[in-house]
Amino acid sequence: MQVTVIGSSGDINYDLQTMSEELGRGIAKHGAILICGGRDGVMAAVCKGAKEENGLTVGILPGSGDEANRFVDVKIITGMGDGRNVINSKSADVVIVVGGRSGTLSEIGHALKSGKKIIALKNSGGVGEMFAGKHLDGHEIYSANSVDHALELTFE
Amino acid sequence: MQVTVIGSSGDINYDLQTMSEELGRGIAKHGAILICGGRDGVMAAVCKGAKEENGLTVGILPGSGDEANRFVDVKIITGMGDGRNVINSKSADVVIVVGGRSGTLSEIGHALKSGKKIIALKNSGGVGEMFAGKHLDGHEIYSANSVDHALELTFE
Amino acid sequence: MQVTVIGSSGDINYDLQTMSEELGRGIAKHGAILICGGRDGVMAAVCKGAKEENGLTVGILPGSGDEANRFVDVKIITGMGDGRNVINSKSADVVIVVGGRSGTLSEIGHALKSGKKIIALKNSGGVGEMFAGKHLDGHEIYSANSVDHALELTFE
Amino acid sequence: MQVTVIGSSGDINYDLQTMSEELGRGIAKHGAILICGGRDGVMAAVCKGAKEENGLTVGILPGSGDEANRFVDVKIITGMGDGRNVINSKSADVVIVVGGRSGTLSEIGHALKSGKKIIALKNSGGVGEMFAGKHLDGHEIYSANSVDHALELTFE
Repeated sequence: MQVTVIGSSGDINYDLQTMSEELGRGIAKHGAILICGGRDGVMAAVCKGAKEENGLTVGILPGSGDEANRFVDVKIITGMGDGRNVINSKSADVVIVVGGRSGTLSEIGHALKSGKKIIALKNSGGVGEMFAGKHLDGHEIYSANSVDHALELTFE
Repeated sequence: MQVTVIGSSGDINYDLQTMSEELGRGIAKHGAILICGGRDGVMAAVCKGAKEENGLTVGILPGSGDEANRFVDVKIITGMGDGRNVINSKSADVVIVVGGRSGTLSEIGHALKSGKKIIALKNSGGVGEMFAGKHLDGHEIYSANSVDHALELTFE
Repeated sequence: MQVTVIGSSGDINYDLQTMSEELGRGIAKHGAILICGGRDGVMAAVCKGAKEENGLTVGILPGSGDEANRFVDVKIITGMGDGRNVINSKSADVVIVVGGRSGTLSEIGHALKSGKKIIALKNSGGVGEMFAGKHLDGHEIYSANSVDHALELTFE
Repeated sequence: MQVTVIGSSGDINYDLQTMSEELGRGIAKHGAILICGGRDGVMAAVCKGAKEENGLTVGILPGSGDEANRFVDVKIITGMGDGRNVINSKSADVVIVVGGRSGTLSEIGHALKSGKKIIALKNSGGVGEMFAGKHLDGHEIYSANSVDHALELTFE
């Protein structure tokens, strides 16, 4: 099973960091492959968590390999900039949203278009919070109250 | 100047058809190049309008050239499926949203990420209506009450 | 009809410059739309030629719009780096090769894969010269002795 | 380390099958991650070999996940058709060519453009054989006389 986590890049606050690491640990414990954009912020935190539980992490990178966080095992180097966002969404069995801004919004759009199951962490701010529980295109974006709830919805 | 119109594919109602054709005519009258996804629905209607005023129309197609509507002058054949959505957004000086669903949502995300000016037709339903007037990532998605208002915001 | 010209970027010699401008003029005179990578070298020269005959020029750009040569009418901004090469090839009815290096090689590969008619200028050096007259995958890459010959093969 | 193997899809002969499996086993034994297009032919054989030695296999798929061969561990679903070829090349530390036709040619072009080390199996037919030992763009495509030689050149 492949789970893609999308969300905020750049500096993130303590709550988002903790939440993302816990999410990464949970995904790894369930034996799923973690896919993400491979960079900093939520992406680095979720990879860090996954590696703590010996999970496999895949980063789909917009530019070169240099921008990968140090917890990425497999570096997919696209050179496609934001054009790589569609791949993050399409490669997932389930997509989990943690905060995020415009890039994450594009990934939600691509995930909905591909009919993927999407789970948004309600208390994560950004577009994750904005879309948790929303219906669009006949699909529900599931709202998760906690990381445990998100994992439950993912692996049920 | 290049204006990208994004919105509903497939069958669209009379209002959306009329609105899109009027928008296409207005873009052409202002001498701008019309860019869109090149397919049916809003894309075909806006191209039809633009051609009525001898505008230039560009379709950025997901698959092959066969799927282009008959009002497309320049066929950009990507073979990239939804991966082409990012190109629609990036190629614009201004993006105008008419209705739309998940594909359009991904294009709004990409347009925001690229810092493009975005104008959404308030009465067009779908994600156009959902995002008209919203702020995201420090950017406003301008709300237009009418096609004329959208054209005014585009060319001011 | 859409003709894509692929070939050397960067500084090019006088012969290549002259050949490319003549090719651009010929494509425009035949009423075809010129598609290219939109940058410098052969791409700029062929666009310059096309504009001298009031042709329509389309540049499929790897990065932003800033890198477009000043003879490009329609700027397709992909942000996809070399990932845009496949679009150059797929958007063509006929592909013409003028010199070129590794990027051009990738475009020849993509054009062959898509079953496009390919014509290489025999005296243009680079991969154009290397592939003129070669057979690959059951397709012939036609060898043109001159710009006139290339145009004849293109529009016959 | 990430090694990308590119080459013939579809039905392949016994020699190519054996060569590819041996190559996959060698890559896995050296502890490198195997990247390929994820489909049939050389791609399936090299993945099969890698799994026999408990290697990690990554398939960068043109369409959906259904087309992956059954030896692929990580499925990168691009939906980009041939547009995904550039990713195969860019994600590699070293690219190894086994036979192949036009798609492989595009990948060689992309690998050269990205300055990757490329090794072609001399006796593998197709573009692998055509390019083994050739110089292009100031780069050499190394010629390997055998799978062992290719592995030696890869991991030296």
